[in-house]
Amino acid sequence: MAKELKGRAIHLKSRPQGEPTAANFELVETTIPEPAEGQILVCNLFMSVDPYMRGRMNDVKSYVPPFQVGQPLDGGVVGQVVHSKALGFEEGDFVSGPGGWREYHVAPANQYMKVDPGVGSLSAYLGVLGMPGMTAYVGLLDLGKPQAGETVFVSGAAGAVGGLVGQIAKLKGCRVVGSAGSAEKVKHLREELGFDDAFNYKDGPVAQALERTCPEGIDVYFDNVGGEHLEASIGKMKNYGRIVLCGAISQYNATAPAPGPRNLMLAVARRLTLQGFIVSDERHQERRPDFLRDVGGWLREKKVKEVETVVEGLDKAPEAFIGLLRGHNTGKMVVKLASPV
Amino acid sequence: MAKELKGRAIHLKSRPQGEPTAANFELVETTIPEPAEGQILVCNLFMSVDPYMRGRMNDVKSYVPPFQVGQPLDGGVVGQVVHSKALGFEEGDFVSGPGGWREYHVAPANQYMKVDPGVGSLSAYLGVLGMPGMTAYVGLLDLGKPQAGETVFVSGAAGAVGGLVGQIAKLKGCRVVGSAGSAEKVKHLREELGFDDAFNYKDGPVAQALERTCPEGIDVYFDNVGGEHLEASIGKMKNYGRIVLCGAISQYNATAPAPGPRNLMLAVARRLTLQGFIVSDERHQERRPDFLRDVGGWLREKKVKEVETVVEGLDKAPEAFIGLLRGHNTGKMVVKLASPV
Repeated sequence: MAKELKGRAIHLKSRPQGEPTAANFELVETTIPEPAEGQILVCNLFMSVDPYMRGRMNDVKSYVPPFQVGQPLDGGVVGQVVHSKALGFEEGDFVSGPGGWREYHVAPANQYMKVDPGVGSLSAYLGVLGMPGMTAYVGLLDLGKPQAGETVFVSGAAGAVGGLVGQIAKLKGCRVVGSAGSAEKVKHLREELGFDDAFNYKDGPVAQALERTCPEGIDVYFDNVGGEHLEASIGKMKNYGRIVLCGAISQYNATAPAPGPRNLMLAVARRLTLQGFIVSDERHQERRPDFLRDVGGWLREKKVKEVETVVEGLDKAPEAFIGLLRGHNTGKMVVKLASPV
Repeated sequence: MAKELKGRAIHLKSRPQGEPTAANFELVETTIPEPAEGQILVCNLFMSVDPYMRGRMNDVKSYVPPFQVGQPLDGGVVGQVVHSKALGFEEGDFVSGPGGWREYHVAPANQYMKVDPGVGSLSAYLGVLGMPGMTAYVGLLDLGKPQAGETVFVSGAAGAVGGLVGQIAKLKGCRVVGSAGSAEKVKHLREELGFDDAFNYKDGPVAQALERTCPEGIDVYFDNVGGEHLEASIGKMKNYGRIVLCGAISQYNATAPAPGPRNLMLAVARRLTLQGFIVSDERHQERRPDFLRDVGGWLREKKVKEVETVVEGLDKAPEAFIGLLRGHNTGKMVVKLASPV
């Protein structure tokens, strides 16, 4: 590294009010420092945009600290080691870890995991083999506890998490119904991902669509959406049903609190359990080996499909993120920053 | 039984719209039949009025069938056997079972349980040793899973269920806070039942009262009330908190659905579990021996107090029930119908 290395990064220019716009982001060029002892310099190949990032753009304390104005954004990446000062990492190794929204990142090697490019595509480590995949696996199996023959409904089913939830539920012998925001996505769920039924929630009230697609009720509802979907699902839950509260993308851009489900007290008469979770919690980490074995195996055996929407170029990352919140993706939304060498 | 036996009963005259009134009830005298083989004739000594009965007065399918207009109401009683045609039951035995809202009831003996008048008072089998007691025991211990040192908040704490929830939580080493609807009840919780803190929810917003009484947050919220209490509690729950959904007395007289908690999606960031239950479910019955052993033991050792509000006379039962929904009781509300012979 004789030559000084320059790299671009996306900074948070201002906090979005409601829906984010291009003006909330800024492309900045900086000089990349050399790695210190124990650190690696990573060239980012793919970066992730995820719905949870919207929450971090607000100045609110939550389970992850807020992004800072004037500082680079962050998130998951798959990259390639350019320079290593850490034992066990070699130039050319593929890794996944933090440091998204920029072209290069220097960080302690222990924040990274080496990834095997032979299991799926490299970007799969941001999707089915990454955080969204683990979210679907842990949320559905450990919290939703679906049994063969039960009906599983998943909202945001054409997204990175929802698509895998549905596919795993099918593998477990469930009847699977999904909602999505366009006719093409509904077709994708039915024809590509093997859902038993699916509907476009923009076509009419969710409660009516559930009446039609889950006439005998829902055993497990995997909620990525909140709002109307949650209320309508509570209304169709069977006794002893489980609701996995994973996200509420319908409300992430909200500027005022939305009314909660008016029928929540049905949870008493129907003995429902509603459970929120954060997949990065320590308590879920013991499931990582099972997750990689199962989902990795299903991928190799083509029992699970890896679906992604790829946007090219760091400068397009804000657009990709804004599009994600509008549902412009099918499957995992990733931004391709560079090609492996 | 040479002489024809007459007995009075309260019938549902009409379904209440909103708050029930005296006009919804009718006192009727009927002839009591002799018991057939396997049946017993019971003279009711105490009958129970319970919040769940309000739901059964609506013409809505739920976990128990609705009461029928023109028919007697029903509910738990403690009574004494007048005439037995069933093995194992003798004249003079004390029993608990169904057939409330009337002076006498004839029914199959297998619907009844013999009760021991030596453990607590006879009416305790409608309260701490009966359905409300079992509700508190199972809901708090099996669903709320309180750990020593944790903060437990219970709403409707001066009621039959809430009062026992708080006392059991204290026995388990928790810090216990309760809400109730009058200054006297708050005093009762603090001075009689040993709550660490309590507040009158009519004095101001529940969220402010929780800020003051649970400054470090809530680990277990036992919800008897719903509405504002539930939303405010969600706002003060700690990470991994458990919310036991037992009832929603604030909404039982509602004529339109009330808005749900606007902050339910905090359940994701805080990893909350909300769980509804019905104590009469088969799955909870295996806990009955533990419940009777533990709560019976605590009663005998005076570690738990039996608190009740007694109204005298069958004709006063509607008034007792209407008063219950308005919070006129402290502890279990019972109606005394007769004295043991």
